[in-house]
Amino acid sequence: MPASKIDLSPHNARAYLEPGPIVLISSRHGDETNIMTLGWHVVLEFSPSLVGCMISGGNHSFRLVRQSRECVINLPTVDMIDTVVRIGNSSGRSVDKFADNALTAEPALRVEAPLIGECYANFECRLFDDAMVDRYNFFIFEIVKAHRARRPKHPQTIHYTGDGDFMVAGKIVSRRGLFRPGMLGNGRS
Amino acid sequence: MPASKIDLSPHNARAYLEPGPIVLISSRHGDETNIMTLGWHVVLEFSPSLVGCMISGGNHSFRLVRQSRECVINLPTVDMIDTVVRIGNSSGRSVDKFADNALTAEPALRVEAPLIGECYANFECRLFDDAMVDRYNFFIFEIVKAHRARRPKHPQTIHYTGDGDFMVAGKIVSRRGLFRPGMLGNGRS
Repeated sequence: MPASKIDLSPHNARAYLEPGPIVLISSRHGDETNIMTLGWHVVLEFSPSLVGCMISGGNHSFRLVRQSRECVINLPTVDMIDTVVRIGNSSGRSVDKFADNALTAEPALRVEAPLIGECYANFECRLFDDAMVDRYNFFIFEIVKAHRARRPKHPQTIHYTGDGDFMVAGKIVSRRGLFRPGMLGNGRS
Repeated sequence: MPASKIDLSPHNARAYLEPGPIVLISSRHGDETNIMTLGWHVVLEFSPSLVGCMISGGNHSFRLVRQSRECVINLPTVDMIDTVVRIGNSSGRSVDKFADNALTAEPALRVEAPLIGECYANFECRLFDDAMVDRYNFFIFEIVKAHRARRPKHPQTIHYTGDGDFMVAGKIVSRRGLFRPGMLGNGRS
């Protein structure tokens, strides 16, 4: 586990992914390592902790993920926005995205792909189902290990709205009192 | 088209769905109409405009959507947060969610399911692929018609983080200048 991070139960990954942030996908296959930006992801199940990602076939990362059957989903915050955009606008065919962006590749515990140390959270993923990859470039991953920073409780994630604009996560409002008890849980413990 | 709304190109639905807001799914089959809340959705393609939704089999709406092969994805804003939570914590088996929540059912143009008039945007959907429904309750819809309010440009959507907490959409920051031209487009026109 990265020194600055704490464990997160994989089934609580939803607390960070369901709000729809831009994420960085890191991957490794053989000698090749890459990072890509991704906004098209979805939580599919709590246990096992499943997340679906649409990784366009035009991305250099597509082949690395498909062949290694692994990746890490990393959660950047608004202080990393320029890095996120640069990564999304360059190709791993021509540049080393860790070195070029001064990002720290940290070892994961359950997969070969590296964690991005600067990100708020890291979700180590193994390919769970590739049945939708040929038709939709849609990978279903199982999150097998998760890490998050100790603070803040609510990270300032960034959410892409197209045309170069991002929405930055705003205030938190609680409506716990309106929920039936059985509808709560799966938070951020 | 609802009087207060303007057309939105279906392939620009990503501007509103990619940021990951909670949405309301309205559905109709025969005499039955329902509404459910949903946070587990993903953009899958621009053209055709495809979106995937994980609709749990325990929801009353699951059967209505599966049998009618249609729905409307409605985008609520923060002023509707209490309504959104009430809808998520009640079942259409026992209540009329339009009447109970004083919501306006407006006719859609391309589907039988009603639009929710109070929502910022409405995406009329037809079932495009049900191959993942049995295994994951994952429906792939095509957005065949889309409507949005004239203003504001950036709606204050709500994003669920678990445990009864919501993140409200915050400030907008542009990084257009850092994008390659081919990476822009598909905004909110």
